[in-house]
Amino acid sequence: MSLITVGTMAFDAIETPFGKTDKIVGGSAVYVAYAASNFVKPVQQISIVGFDFPKEEMEELRNRGVHLDGVEIVKDKKSFFWSGRYHEDMNSRDTLITDLNVLADFDPKVPDSYQGSEFLMLGNLHPKTQLNVIQELRQRPRLIAMDTMNYWMESAMPELRIVLKYVDMLIINDAEARQLTGLFSLVRAAKAILQMGPKYLIIKKGEHGALLFHDDEVFFAPALPLEDVFDPTGAGDTFAGGFMGHLAKSGDISFDNMKRAIIVGSAMASFCVEKFGPTRLKEVTKEEIDARIQQFKNLVSFEMELV
Amino acid sequence: MSLITVGTMAFDAIETPFGKTDKIVGGSAVYVAYAASNFVKPVQQISIVGFDFPKEEMEELRNRGVHLDGVEIVKDKKSFFWSGRYHEDMNSRDTLITDLNVLADFDPKVPDSYQGSEFLMLGNLHPKTQLNVIQELRQRPRLIAMDTMNYWMESAMPELRIVLKYVDMLIINDAEARQLTGLFSLVRAAKAILQMGPKYLIIKKGEHGALLFHDDEVFFAPALPLEDVFDPTGAGDTFAGGFMGHLAKSGDISFDNMKRAIIVGSAMASFCVEKFGPTRLKEVTKEEIDARIQQFKNLVSFEMELV
Repeated sequence: MSLITVGTMAFDAIETPFGKTDKIVGGSAVYVAYAASNFVKPVQQISIVGFDFPKEEMEELRNRGVHLDGVEIVKDKKSFFWSGRYHEDMNSRDTLITDLNVLADFDPKVPDSYQGSEFLMLGNLHPKTQLNVIQELRQRPRLIAMDTMNYWMESAMPELRIVLKYVDMLIINDAEARQLTGLFSLVRAAKAILQMGPKYLIIKKGEHGALLFHDDEVFFAPALPLEDVFDPTGAGDTFAGGFMGHLAKSGDISFDNMKRAIIVGSAMASFCVEKFGPTRLKEVTKEEIDARIQQFKNLVSFEMELV
Repeated sequence: MSLITVGTMAFDAIETPFGKTDKIVGGSAVYVAYAASNFVKPVQQISIVGFDFPKEEMEELRNRGVHLDGVEIVKDKKSFFWSGRYHEDMNSRDTLITDLNVLADFDPKVPDSYQGSEFLMLGNLHPKTQLNVIQELRQRPRLIAMDTMNYWMESAMPELRIVLKYVDMLIINDAEARQLTGLFSLVRAAKAILQMGPKYLIIKKGEHGALLFHDDEVFFAPALPLEDVFDPTGAGDTFAGGFMGHLAKSGDISFDNMKRAIIVGSAMASFCVEKFGPTRLKEVTKEEIDARIQQFKNLVSFEMELV
């Protein structure tokens, strides 16, 4: 099976209570690719970069089975740049700089070589851009998942409501679920969102784990209790990459397999936050991933006979 | 086995986004007793009430196997009264009124008939009062658990540090764990608290579940995702009552059985929040409890072969 991922490839400058980095590779599609390529090949990347995006990073991605035919390189512009500072609780951050650069002209095309892919992950982009990608696919993927954010709810809600009707799964955080529905209770918000189009919904709660909703079923995956969250940048995209990577590897989109996939996504996210940017994702081994998944199992497993 | 519970028996006035009650029975020992008596008999209550505490409530507790020999009745004073208003997120609240009344003179005595009890739950009281109860016991219980709060950390920290050396388990919320240690990371805070005396620590995170720490082990129990939290008053004490009730019923204080106990506590707390005060706890049946525990199992269980 193969997985198409559409999103940004960028530079980030990040400040956390633990340290600071001036310029590190980032972007949603980068995190998705590094996470998913542990499980499925090829990962088929659709993105846009400027002249300044490092060739070594492209090479590293290629070595991991990431196809880059869908990555447009703009010779006379810079790559997307984001800068932010995290608060002590790491759940909130201030955006300091957003330089769109090449992203202002992003009009993603699906290369012929990507046609027929079974899984599609639409990163956080303008809903119109997300819809364009779906409509460029000659064969509908078995599972289309998408991310979005408060910015699009405020500036492009009608378009967002449309693209929601075309996807199978929405992956957002708790604040976004509340904003999208105007409902404080996440259970009520989930019910409302499952009426908007997606059959599956994941609500990410950062250090408090993630909830998966489908029909009347709900599954909860904890986040791993960590001594320190060094840098949460990209954790949500890494989660999505691990989740979709596991599904695409197995080709099984049953609810039971989605439970496994959400644990895999949580495990990958727990690595992501250990170092700046995608640094840790580039080092992580299969043995480490398996051990981390076992930790999640131990964290929540209990045996109980009801008598 | 039997369980001694020391704490308040009181009246509460509660305001939530869903409604308001002017005067309802409450207090930590009341919630612990209603929760624990589903699992273990006798529950041996140590508390103090005024002339106004309802005889029918005493009768109802007795009918559930709760011993009241340790409950002092003061003929010329009123019972402890607390009034509070919850914010929309239900995780924060404003205290409007605290009338200590009889509680100002509370000097708990352990009746002879309670001596030899194997389990002791010390509700949130002055650390000196908690220590007095421990020292009145001629035989040390197999497991002593205690609750505390920010107020005692600010006003009686030296005494709190002493009583912590005498207990096996501390049960507090995330904000309290952070305040007690000055550490933001709950994992680091847990390590620090396990150096202060208790061998076991439960950190309650409200709607985000609860963590159990012991040595290098950690277990996580989610909270049940609910459409509405009607009234969170007493949920923490109900959790403790279910937890200790399960342990006392089985007499098994292994870490594996504590995992089951924390699920039982979470299940009982999920009932507590469905109605004002202890109302729901008085109605709940064994069948409902078993079904709720099964819901918790379904919420987090996944099968995964690592290949």
